[in-house]
Amino acid sequence: MTHSMSELTAVLTAPGRITRPGKGDAMHRLIVELYPVCRSITGDGMRASLLRIKECVGLTLHEVPTGTRAFDWRVPREWNISNAYIRNSRGETVVDFRNSSLHVMSYSVPVHTRMPLSELRHHLHSLPAQPDLIPYRTSYYTEDWGFCLSHAQLESLDEGEYDVVIDSSLEPGNLTYGEVYIPGEVTDEILISCHCCHPALCNDNLSGMALTTFLAAGLAESRRRLSYRFLFIPGAIGAITWLALNEETVSRIRGGLVVACVGDPGPMTYKKSRRGDAEIDRAAAHVLKHSGKPFSIREFSPYGYDERQYCSPGFNLPVGSLTRTPHGEFAQYHTSADNPDFVRSEPLEESLATYMEVLDVLDKNETYVNTNPHCEPELGRRGLYAGTGGQSPPAEEQMAILWVLNLSDGTYSLLDIADRSGLPFTMISSAAGRLREHGLLEKRGVRP
Amino acid sequence: MTHSMSELTAVLTAPGRITRPGKGDAMHRLIVELYPVCRSITGDGMRASLLRIKECVGLTLHEVPTGTRAFDWRVPREWNISNAYIRNSRGETVVDFRNSSLHVMSYSVPVHTRMPLSELRHHLHSLPAQPDLIPYRTSYYTEDWGFCLSHAQLESLDEGEYDVVIDSSLEPGNLTYGEVYIPGEVTDEILISCHCCHPALCNDNLSGMALTTFLAAGLAESRRRLSYRFLFIPGAIGAITWLALNEETVSRIRGGLVVACVGDPGPMTYKKSRRGDAEIDRAAAHVLKHSGKPFSIREFSPYGYDERQYCSPGFNLPVGSLTRTPHGEFAQYHTSADNPDFVRSEPLEESLATYMEVLDVLDKNETYVNTNPHCEPELGRRGLYAGTGGQSPPAEEQMAILWVLNLSDGTYSLLDIADRSGLPFTMISSAAGRLREHGLLEKRGVRP
Amino acid sequence: MTHSMSELTAVLTAPGRITRPGKGDAMHRLIVELYPVCRSITGDGMRASLLRIKECVGLTLHEVPTGTRAFDWRVPREWNISNAYIRNSRGETVVDFRNSSLHVMSYSVPVHTRMPLSELRHHLHSLPAQPDLIPYRTSYYTEDWGFCLSHAQLESLDEGEYDVVIDSSLEPGNLTYGEVYIPGEVTDEILISCHCCHPALCNDNLSGMALTTFLAAGLAESRRRLSYRFLFIPGAIGAITWLALNEETVSRIRGGLVVACVGDPGPMTYKKSRRGDAEIDRAAAHVLKHSGKPFSIREFSPYGYDERQYCSPGFNLPVGSLTRTPHGEFAQYHTSADNPDFVRSEPLEESLATYMEVLDVLDKNETYVNTNPHCEPELGRRGLYAGTGGQSPPAEEQMAILWVLNLSDGTYSLLDIADRSGLPFTMISSAAGRLREHGLLEKRGVRP
Repeated sequence: MTHSMSELTAVLTAPGRITRPGKGDAMHRLIVELYPVCRSITGDGMRASLLRIKECVGLTLHEVPTGTRAFDWRVPREWNISNAYIRNSRGETVVDFRNSSLHVMSYSVPVHTRMPLSELRHHLHSLPAQPDLIPYRTSYYTEDWGFCLSHAQLESLDEGEYDVVIDSSLEPGNLTYGEVYIPGEVTDEILISCHCCHPALCNDNLSGMALTTFLAAGLAESRRRLSYRFLFIPGAIGAITWLALNEETVSRIRGGLVVACVGDPGPMTYKKSRRGDAEIDRAAAHVLKHSGKPFSIREFSPYGYDERQYCSPGFNLPVGSLTRTPHGEFAQYHTSADNPDFVRSEPLEESLATYMEVLDVLDKNETYVNTNPHCEPELGRRGLYAGTGGQSPPAEEQMAILWVLNLSDGTYSLLDIADRSGLPFTMISSAAGRLREHGLLEKRGVRP
Repeated sequence: MTHSMSELTAVLTAPGRITRPGKGDAMHRLIVELYPVCRSITGDGMRASLLRIKECVGLTLHEVPTGTRAFDWRVPREWNISNAYIRNSRGETVVDFRNSSLHVMSYSVPVHTRMPLSELRHHLHSLPAQPDLIPYRTSYYTEDWGFCLSHAQLESLDEGEYDVVIDSSLEPGNLTYGEVYIPGEVTDEILISCHCCHPALCNDNLSGMALTTFLAAGLAESRRRLSYRFLFIPGAIGAITWLALNEETVSRIRGGLVVACVGDPGPMTYKKSRRGDAEIDRAAAHVLKHSGKPFSIREFSPYGYDERQYCSPGFNLPVGSLTRTPHGEFAQYHTSADNPDFVRSEPLEESLATYMEVLDVLDKNETYVNTNPHCEPELGRRGLYAGTGGQSPPAEEQMAILWVLNLSDGTYSLLDIADRSGLPFTMISSAAGRLREHGLLEKRGVRP
Repeated sequence: MTHSMSELTAVLTAPGRITRPGKGDAMHRLIVELYPVCRSITGDGMRASLLRIKECVGLTLHEVPTGTRAFDWRVPREWNISNAYIRNSRGETVVDFRNSSLHVMSYSVPVHTRMPLSELRHHLHSLPAQPDLIPYRTSYYTEDWGFCLSHAQLESLDEGEYDVVIDSSLEPGNLTYGEVYIPGEVTDEILISCHCCHPALCNDNLSGMALTTFLAAGLAESRRRLSYRFLFIPGAIGAITWLALNEETVSRIRGGLVVACVGDPGPMTYKKSRRGDAEIDRAAAHVLKHSGKPFSIREFSPYGYDERQYCSPGFNLPVGSLTRTPHGEFAQYHTSADNPDFVRSEPLEESLATYMEVLDVLDKNETYVNTNPHCEPELGRRGLYAGTGGQSPPAEEQMAILWVLNLSDGTYSLLDIADRSGLPFTMISSAAGRLREHGLLEKRGVRP
């Protein structure tokens, strides 16, 4: 069952707890809720997180068995963990998984042993340059184990023997992912994809999950031309598995966005698809340019989030990534400082609004034909032009009408017209609406 | 009967009246002569103006009856006016059409009435920000009437009753326009179009009419490759009517320019055609770039003068607009300050020269083939290269010869060669002439 | 017999004469050796120079008889000179060819006469702006004679009678040029061409001859994919003659460089081919951009060295020119100051290395296909990706692997990938090599 956007906001906004209730606050609440869950690319942490999101939107959970082929890959064993700690010779627990799921390297194999610090050190990860932060480390495809801790704590450890325990399991099971599909008037679809495989990291992981949840709820509320698909998946192997299992769906993808890092205070950043000039690339650039706020547009690179898979040469999908500060460019990235204090309601809300605007452009970006292409039509008698002439230059709304008429020759889409005219898409789209009402514009291909 | 350019200059230059006789002065004289005539989109003011121009060049006057269909439009009723005034309760005439044709809103319906200032005010137009100037207003397609006056005068009017008289008529008649056609070697033609529908406005209207008159006279003097057509028309409805009545002529238009605002002291400005890279766009840009003077090149926009109609999507003609300061960007625009003092001989003369240069480029811009395309031909024995080698770099004339030979492969026109080489078109064209004399260059397509 | 690069370096490096033996020094030695030889476009000076180079690389000498047709040209008569002087009335030799081969205008006809200074002056060439330098002058295609001398000396000549002697001959003979061909795996070939027709000029002429000699020796040492052809020719007529006699070879030329002015201290300069975006143009630009040193890239112009002929419209070969300071832009150009002191070992060596890098790009620039185009392949299990995830951004070598996989769709060559990624070609080429070893990449067109 899907909640409406306002129900969802209400559900997630505990009364009295937040001063300015709204979508941003509600997204932040969801982040706070999911923060303690130990997610990885498989296992119960991922499953629990998706079940919580299922309460918000009509999510379908898929379970893909270990060993399933996905192109060059196989779905790995399922990893679960119940406890982990390091205890010194005095019996004091010096590192405890229960304090932070970052303390254990993701996919660590089970360990029950005792060893001196000199040996244990090979399994300890810290950040000398950020001595108070716990790093995030994984070892999905190489069997290994490890603990992550602050460099300050590592430095303070006595030489001597330590009890080392990781109560984990790495066994045949499933890869779990979530999917929401909102059908529109046409089967051409937009893909929105977020990764859900990181443990206690907020901007990188939880912010994207929260935004995607609210975006799905928001789009389900209104009738849309295009169809929309939302994927909540583990990074890399999740996208690879989904693509392998859904090759015929792929051909319907007209555009897409990979969601991540949407809660930090930095400016919006759009990373183009491999194509570079796809409709999604132009729509995102258009919205950011007209936002009146700082922004950055980056060229495609085959590193990053799951755009790496969607833009692999065999698919070459028109999928970009819309973030705030990109991965690796904020100091908190992949550390314990990427916590609920780092992400904020205001940027989350602004990010959501930006996504909505970009998707609106795609949904409304049609190509029309001027039904009266020889000279301008007489706009005055239709109430579309000022009666008294000679005065100051026309308002932007008037210019939008002239631009739509002038360029609607069946080759310019509304986004093309917006970009060439320099006017915002919303104004161009609205002018097209008025002209259609007067029969001065029709969809391309309507006439025989 | 067409006057030669020099006869025309002589005719229009009253002896002893101007110190530096020349084309600029002659154009200015024509502007001064036509200034008092009350022109509108139809009627005797337009007719009289065109008859005066007919005395200068071989103009054909066309009369198109009211009601004639022109695409989405119909030719409107003919408007004429003999008198108009506002008289106060003391019998004093406070606004008098005879002082300025700007005082009456163009196409005002007849009025003979008496009303208090409070009611009259709804029909009075002024410019609070330019309190000493009379604005220019029209109401062609909405039946209305109005007076235009300075804001200072409006402020000084007493409350009380006023006699309001507009002796106008709005009746079936004709739309009048003028046309000059100068046939060349080929029927491909260049369209030069100016609007003639404004009353006492000099830069916006009369400067374009004067330049177009002198341009037609000038082009008629020499043998040209292309044909040339000059339209003296009312804005919008004139272009629409001409296009509707001349659809088969349209297919022969290879380029065109809309003339207006060519007498003010600002730098030359070229507004590109909707195509943006048409030959006319490149020719105008080339001439301005090599002029050694400030200039500006603007992208197309579907607002402005009759390029709006020529560049409507059903025609998409390669027609730009070459002005000095564009409409609406000079403070005198559409006010009584756009008077004979605002336009000057020097800029008029420079504008005319620029038009001539642009048309020369179009006329001479042919594509040739190097008859000796393998390596350079031996230029020295033909006297086309210095005998003594080893000296300083070749002169530009020499470089022009090398560029024409190198690029004349049947795909580069002379304008392409000029642009790629950075040399002025005149120099490239002259080099091509020398090479043709030596049989080293021939027209594309000459060989079977 | 071809010497190896190291043998050649040893042969040309006299023991004890130079402090830092190496290729740069060896090239400089060759320049010093050839400096006194009086070269022109034909004759024994050219022949002797090529025979000296033949001792270094497997050069084939070609002799083309006077009168042979070459497109619009004919091979001229052969010019030789044994002596020339000007002697004053006191019997003092004031200008002596034996002091500098620049003293006689190249292709001067024989003269044995006596004349007053007033008459002789018409045959004397000097540089008033560089009064201590002897200029370089030629008169290949106009029968004439002349002497070149410093302006200071010209100014010091007494009025009075002078004995003027030029013991030259201009008779049917041959045009001589040298050619080295190094076959590779494929017959597609790279053309390297240098002019050898200037007398005592080092940067303009000898530096190019020396670099081309060492480049041929260097390329002959290793197995190459492409074939390479080196031309040592007189300027203009040499290239024209070679093209006329080798029209079927021309079709195999995939790229080329004209070598000149490679020994001065200025930054490297690449002048593009007429095509502007040929593979050679992109390869040269790539190498210069990644060199870490200042450089300049220029557009094609139909003036310069033999790229004028190779890029004539009937051939339009992808041949650019890679120099240091271009012809005419250094003060020593075509004067006696372009001597062995002006060219240096270090820039010669750097120029040679740059040529080698550019040719390496062409040789290795193939287009591959990712054999696993759907999503990324699992690089970790092949040792091509770090086992522990979550850390700092990948090294450039890692990014090179991702870029090659992402763009190898059969349309991007390795140079295309290098340019789009911003990484150096060598790194991209090396990544492609590793991926081929793992079967993740194969040559385009391998599969049926």
